Amino acid sequence: MAGEMSPDEFREFGRAAVDFIADYIENIRERPVLPAVEPGYLLPLLPTECPQDPEPWQDVMKDLQKHIMPGVTHWQSPSFHAYFPTANSFPGVVGEMLSAGLGVIGFSWITSPACTELEVIVTDWLGKMLALPEEFLHCGAGAGGGIIQGSASEATLVGMLAARDRTVRKVREEDPKLSDGEIRSKLVAYTSDQANSSVWKSGLLGAIPMRQLPTDAEGALRGDVLEAAIRSDRQKGLIPCFVVATLGTTGTCAFDNLEELGPVCNREGLWLHIDAAYAGSAYVCPELRQTMAGVEFADSFDMNPHKWMLVNFDCSVMWVKNSADLENAFNVDAVYLKHDKQGVMPDYRHWQLPLGRRFRALKLWLVLRTYGARGIQAHIRKQVKLAQDFEQLVDQDPRFEVAVRARCGLVCFRMVGPCARTQEVLRRVTARRSLYMCPAVVRGRAVLRFVVCSRLTEAEDVRRSWEEIVSQAEAVLQAEQALAPAPATATVAATVAVSCDPDRAKTNSVLHMLGATAADGQHTV
Amino acid sequence: MAGEMSPDEFREFGRAAVDFIADYIENIRERPVLPAVEPGYLLPLLPTECPQDPEPWQDVMKDLQKHIMPGVTHWQSPSFHAYFPTANSFPGVVGEMLSAGLGVIGFSWITSPACTELEVIVTDWLGKMLALPEEFLHCGAGAGGGIIQGSASEATLVGMLAARDRTVRKVREEDPKLSDGEIRSKLVAYTSDQANSSVWKSGLLGAIPMRQLPTDAEGALRGDVLEAAIRSDRQKGLIPCFVVATLGTTGTCAFDNLEELGPVCNREGLWLHIDAAYAGSAYVCPELRQTMAGVEFADSFDMNPHKWMLVNFDCSVMWVKNSADLENAFNVDAVYLKHDKQGVMPDYRHWQLPLGRRFRALKLWLVLRTYGARGIQAHIRKQVKLAQDFEQLVDQDPRFEVAVRARCGLVCFRMVGPCARTQEVLRRVTARRSLYMCPAVVRGRAVLRFVVCSRLTEAEDVRRSWEEIVSQAEAVLQAEQALAPAPATATVAATVAVSCDPDRAKTNSVLHMLGATAADGQHTV
Repeated sequence: MAGEMSPDEFREFGRAAVDFIADYIENIRERPVLPAVEPGYLLPLLPTECPQDPEPWQDVMKDLQKHIMPGVTHWQSPSFHAYFPTANSFPGVVGEMLSAGLGVIGFSWITSPACTELEVIVTDWLGKMLALPEEFLHCGAGAGGGIIQGSASEATLVGMLAARDRTVRKVREEDPKLSDGEIRSKLVAYTSDQANSSVWKSGLLGAIPMRQLPTDAEGALRGDVLEAAIRSDRQKGLIPCFVVATLGTTGTCAFDNLEELGPVCNREGLWLHIDAAYAGSAYVCPELRQTMAGVEFADSFDMNPHKWMLVNFDCSVMWVKNSADLENAFNVDAVYLKHDKQGVMPDYRHWQLPLGRRFRALKLWLVLRTYGARGIQAHIRKQVKLAQDFEQLVDQDPRFEVAVRARCGLVCFRMVGPCARTQEVLRRVTARRSLYMCPAVVRGRAVLRFVVCSRLTEAEDVRRSWEEIVSQAEAVLQAEQALAPAPATATVAATVAVSCDPDRAKTNSVLHMLGATAADGQHTV
Repeated sequence: MAGEMSPDEFREFGRAAVDFIADYIENIRERPVLPAVEPGYLLPLLPTECPQDPEPWQDVMKDLQKHIMPGVTHWQSPSFHAYFPTANSFPGVVGEMLSAGLGVIGFSWITSPACTELEVIVTDWLGKMLALPEEFLHCGAGAGGGIIQGSASEATLVGMLAARDRTVRKVREEDPKLSDGEIRSKLVAYTSDQANSSVWKSGLLGAIPMRQLPTDAEGALRGDVLEAAIRSDRQKGLIPCFVVATLGTTGTCAFDNLEELGPVCNREGLWLHIDAAYAGSAYVCPELRQTMAGVEFADSFDMNPHKWMLVNFDCSVMWVKNSADLENAFNVDAVYLKHDKQGVMPDYRHWQLPLGRRFRALKLWLVLRTYGARGIQAHIRKQVKLAQDFEQLVDQDPRFEVAVRARCGLVCFRMVGPCARTQEVLRRVTARRSLYMCPAVVRGRAVLRFVVCSRLTEAEDVRRSWEEIVSQAEAVLQAEQALAPAPATATVAATVAVSCDPDRAKTNSVLHMLGATAADGQHTV
């Protein structure tokens, strides 16, 4: 058939693609981390219509090199220090390839038994590696277990909709006169003002007000704050139903206090979901587990191996204590199946939003086996150490200050003095494209987030990034002196008054100055 | 670092995986389409904990062959005729591999300009190939455009939540005394009783009653039925807001009448979403476009290149006429950005549910270029022809009857006589594992759905599948005669009374008989 590629052509094409990826990773240090293109750059370079006739794959690979690669931001570059890591590893890539090659859709057991069963096995492996309570495991006595979702966003939404369903049923039982619509219109949910934008978005999507509660000086949500908010809402006749606690916030990698929040949620009957998207991977190391104390109070827990655990995006693992809560909320045949005995294996389509699902367990399995638990721990420990190295470099330079001490792979730092100075360093560094960081605002002051992201990052890379930051800082200081022979403080203070204004900061002004669109990873503390 | 694979090891591993996939596809005819395993088969075969130390990739590949492959259902087998196709092609696999290798997350333009821009370009290419009105294209004058979603489920939910947001704002403007919660509790949505379970599920997720309106004898939703339902709901004080029309239903590939539904939706101010997940691919062929007449009335249109257009799952392309509807509904900074000028390039994270997104445009681009528009058309025409071939085989055998004439790649057929006979054929065929079909109920009678799924299916494969069906049908007839020397009709009639009962049919009784879990693709007409 026209355009049909033979298996032998695929062997050739596939090998070329494998070499392309190996070369890309091997030589990634040679590329500036950010591309030098303007919005719309690609439109004039590619045709406006699909070709009528088949084109050789070699031509497409040439265009990939010539037109696509110049517009790629290199997330795997050792100088990528923005947002949080997006995992990439060779076994992860092969896992994705094998999953695509088999092309199965595992929405129920029969549609590919191995797809469901390997997911049951590897989510149990991972749950044990993270020291999750047995209630969250398939092999535990109850109805708990793990599932691979596409993203932490989806996991939060799944938790919220299950919580909504559970609460509506409970309230309806207590007061049969209330309609479901009336009950739903009174629901409220809680998270902290440090939660990821996806948590706020889940409130939008689920049409449940998501209160962004204030955090303490460390960026953590505390039990008394939650308790007061619940009390106040109950007095207004509202129905509190869902709490998202974050372990490792996007802004400063802060940890909400589960030992305080958990008992409040359990006592008040609220569903507690833990978003440990980034920092959850740290719990493979026993010495890093102090921040997860209180996890036993949660109804659901989510972390992303596709962030900090070497499994290619997408792979967000969510564990629940009671899978019946999900099945009740998401099963269109719920009434029927309620009378059926739960099978030996979960029917994962009732644990998630979409119907279709790829064989994602393959890549998690490949990564876990080829690294082994010790290899994963070594990766985490190495990146924690690199963040501490960077922190030390900042500490040693009196022109800089650490705003938030290293937590996992993140250090928040700034230049001593007005915020505009720090912002100008970021503007310059970004314009030079050899280093990519995101800004944040901590206690009203502009800071830069330096995250150790790529698995390729070595101590020399961290040092080189630091040297680039220092060289631009020196340029900023020189420019300040050149511009303002009179004492600089007055001029700068005016700028600061604008740029450190919390409201403006919330609109991601720094990144907008950089010509970028608003970005996740922009948070104020 | 422990377990870290070198680029050269990856070249070796990657090549082995490419060969694995090429061999798998090349020899797929040798495998029975269904696996011979029982639920829980994998648990005793794999360890209960992740290995502590790294294991060689060769060991994992051995286990893949030994333990995983026996539990795989072969969706790409030429004898897979269940559900609808899940696409798989060599360029699609390479596209997925390259996307994994680059490991970028394109949630905003700056996070990888090429990721956003190639998606803009290829969704325009595809929109033109399908002859969508210019209003749906990025290159059109308005605010329309396409986006790659993960699944049709997500696209439906995105459409519904945007419709909800648009309706709530409109009603609030007209009657500022109503709260958002009050308005939301009055919303209703409509689809047909033939819609995919994911459409019903979106009603559950969005907490909007999704009315399943009756269809005509052809399985199509008609304008007068919708109009009457809207009128009735308005009389009850409810607020109709969203309609999902299906082009190519899961049960019988029926097409809702857009030329009737569209004007009703436009006049009544309802958002019209078109779910053309499967059949949408047919519109690359001009001679197959009659069923899309009226598409110009829609607000959003979704089809899955990952079903019938050779792009590996996941790749569901959704086009909207007004992207501002999505941005208003999904942008957590909506209030702020409303005052901002829309950029040259879309910020796709506001067009979808999750924040993160893979570089999925690569695989769509690779498939479109290496097949060319003519190659895609040839693929569709070939599979349409194969379905007609099968229909002819059924027609030629007096023991069988065609229940629904071939539509796209689907034929619904049955054995003449009682439903139990058809169901028993399916049970036997499935137990022999060489052929996989799903049951459905058409006008109260059990039928079998025969779908041409794999791109590898040839005329000989269709003939071989038919011979297997005939041989099992003959066995069933022989067994009937052996069991019932008295006229068989009375005995069988009793069975029919049970198994053809529409309520029971709705609970997927046939598939349950097969020991499978409830499956999508189970519909009653």
